[in-house]
Amino acid sequence: MRVAVIRKAHFNAAHRLHNPTWSEQRNQEVFGLCNNPNWHGHNYELEVKVRGEIDPETGMVVDLGWLAHLIKEQVELRFDHKNLNLDTAEFKNLNPTAENIVVVIWNILRAQLPESLDLHVRLYETPRNFVEYPA
Amino acid sequence: MRVAVIRKAHFNAAHRLHNPTWSEQRNQEVFGLCNNPNWHGHNYELEVKVRGEIDPETGMVVDLGWLAHLIKEQVELRFDHKNLNLDTAEFKNLNPTAENIVVVIWNILRAQLPESLDLHVRLYETPRNFVEYPA
Amino acid sequence: MRVAVIRKAHFNAAHRLHNPTWSEQRNQEVFGLCNNPNWHGHNYELEVKVRGEIDPETGMVVDLGWLAHLIKEQVELRFDHKNLNLDTAEFKNLNPTAENIVVVIWNILRAQLPESLDLHVRLYETPRNFVEYPA
Amino acid sequence: MRVAVIRKAHFNAAHRLHNPTWSEQRNQEVFGLCNNPNWHGHNYELEVKVRGEIDPETGMVVDLGWLAHLIKEQVELRFDHKNLNLDTAEFKNLNPTAENIVVVIWNILRAQLPESLDLHVRLYETPRNFVEYPA
Amino acid sequence: MRVAVIRKAHFNAAHRLHNPTWSEQRNQEVFGLCNNPNWHGHNYELEVKVRGEIDPETGMVVDLGWLAHLIKEQVELRFDHKNLNLDTAEFKNLNPTAENIVVVIWNILRAQLPESLDLHVRLYETPRNFVEYPA
Amino acid sequence: MRVAVIRKAHFNAAHRLHNPTWSEQRNQEVFGLCNNPNWHGHNYELEVKVRGEIDPETGMVVDLGWLAHLIKEQVELRFDHKNLNLDTAEFKNLNPTAENIVVVIWNILRAQLPESLDLHVRLYETPRNFVEYPA
Repeated sequence: MRVAVIRKAHFNAAHRLHNPTWSEQRNQEVFGLCNNPNWHGHNYELEVKVRGEIDPETGMVVDLGWLAHLIKEQVELRFDHKNLNLDTAEFKNLNPTAENIVVVIWNILRAQLPESLDLHVRLYETPRNFVEYPA
Repeated sequence: MRVAVIRKAHFNAAHRLHNPTWSEQRNQEVFGLCNNPNWHGHNYELEVKVRGEIDPETGMVVDLGWLAHLIKEQVELRFDHKNLNLDTAEFKNLNPTAENIVVVIWNILRAQLPESLDLHVRLYETPRNFVEYPA
Repeated sequence: MRVAVIRKAHFNAAHRLHNPTWSEQRNQEVFGLCNNPNWHGHNYELEVKVRGEIDPETGMVVDLGWLAHLIKEQVELRFDHKNLNLDTAEFKNLNPTAENIVVVIWNILRAQLPESLDLHVRLYETPRNFVEYPA
Repeated sequence: MRVAVIRKAHFNAAHRLHNPTWSEQRNQEVFGLCNNPNWHGHNYELEVKVRGEIDPETGMVVDLGWLAHLIKEQVELRFDHKNLNLDTAEFKNLNPTAENIVVVIWNILRAQLPESLDLHVRLYETPRNFVEYPA
Repeated sequence: MRVAVIRKAHFNAAHRLHNPTWSEQRNQEVFGLCNNPNWHGHNYELEVKVRGEIDPETGMVVDLGWLAHLIKEQVELRFDHKNLNLDTAEFKNLNPTAENIVVVIWNILRAQLPESLDLHVRLYETPRNFVEYPA
Repeated sequence: MRVAVIRKAHFNAAHRLHNPTWSEQRNQEVFGLCNNPNWHGHNYELEVKVRGEIDPETGMVVDLGWLAHLIKEQVELRFDHKNLNLDTAEFKNLNPTAENIVVVIWNILRAQLPESLDLHVRLYETPRNFVEYPA
């Protein structure tokens, strides 16, 4: 009886899409408005899904309070109200596209979860654009 | 041409998380506020997904009216405006966590569906916490 | 420049609609499933709106952190994961209909807000049923 | 690092469910109100999911502007504000059930996407009824 | 203690915006795609708000079951899965714009409600376009 | 027959709350994380409501295409993917709180609308925090 448990969270951040090895022109062609040197930002909505067996004693796959606390400590405190490019170690040298952010968050949480739990992360950059990892 | 068809439904219920083989203290440590002996409750939102072949005559995998009626008869009438612990046979001796509820609903619906249809159930306990079975 | 600022919050609770001066039969006729003696429950979603002048120094009508904290202390801690009829002073002798709950919450918050701020409260009992006070 | 990228879109259309090889009576029995000869309609909400590798130069799986433009050109312009049965080649001889529509949209988009990208389409016919292909 | 109670409902319909006293060209200029002679359609979402005094015996402004039934009988059965222009008396000679529909619904419901209750109707034509009456 | 017509729109932007006449310490006390000198950002969701008489010839209060275009030209192009503090004339010397932004947008749109139309603007800074003007 393997069940998936999903917890939603969110954080607000500024970012800029940019490849420093490219010319300014190519950056603008590829990233358009997202390349604005003065930054723009988003309300990122996060869905963290863990899959595992129901513990027969508790009836739960994972303690949701623990999971919510883990997401707060590891993701929200790290990224909320931050400039992803300037304020975080993770995106100093990594372009903060939604795709790269979702993989970074997956890696951060994966390192904190017991091996018995599978992990899947969905990240909304806007209500109409979102990403999932693993695909 | 195997297509998934999803129907949403909902029910409102009271419940209490509790393991009768544990001490009161351990129950409070594990279940926290959800252990309130006077109950609390939720608006449960349900998504029932069936997967099957499109019938070339109807263009449908399943008659949605029939599916909606099945969910109403088998799930909503059973659990809506009920105390899950006191009023239902299913949770007399089973802790009504979201994980256990979603498995119970899957088993109830699975017994009523033709074998040619796969079944997947998602259950929202709150807008930010939800579960899926099978995972 | 009078602006309205709205903050959303939520709490989960059990309740029962019941008029102790009526017969059991009349209670069932009027309140139907909501009269279940074993309780049922909801995820109550709350929107607290305060109207006031923008402070030219801060650019804000009210500090949202302060408002969120006030709602948490005065409403969420009081009602979340509670049985409204059994666990709260407010509904010991008052039928916890959505209409009565929204007036009670308005009175609680009104007593804590400066007179310069108007107050309006919306309460969702389910995604399809909600109430507002004042009307 | 295979990531899924999802883009939402929508279109409004009229349709009628009908099988011309059946009697009027059987059409009404199977399709009910959806068989209305004078049509009815929906706001169709679409989620197009493509899965692929993150391009290390751009940090993206696919250019979202390109994907949004593709959906607009291939799906929205074709179906928006149309009568699916009368105004489109795709449903001249195919019953425009949600199941058939989602397969048609998948086929249209599949033909335009590079082979390296997987495709999955979800289509909401109403907020409570939706379909997915492949299942 | 005047409280507002809101009930959501919905119906799906086809329609066409058209002024029969205008030339075809002017109709297309003013109504654009909405003038399609073969119709298009929407999922109309409705919010019916009634304002009144809380009845001290019931704790309710209005019986929600009664209100839901009234909306079903008077609005949903009349307009759901219909072609507004062809199948309804109300829009035989009235252009079924969202503005006109919301006024028609208000008039229908107003005639059925006790005078002590105020009425306000909101109608979503799409998730991004909606109307309210009275304004 | 005065009806309100509401159109939703959105833009993504970076900003920082800051009062240049205050000390750094007071800025941090009042604005907290929102004072981050490296900016943060939001997906701003906008609801523009205009109230007016239904034109009997068109059945409309206002042409929605015209209104959508006006919002795009005057609000979205001005603020989308911008740093409100650095990239816009409006917030060079005005703290870009949600309260100030909603008043600025109201003033911009008010200047473009005929006098016969009333205007009301709602702005979501996050899904749980929003403002309205006039209040």
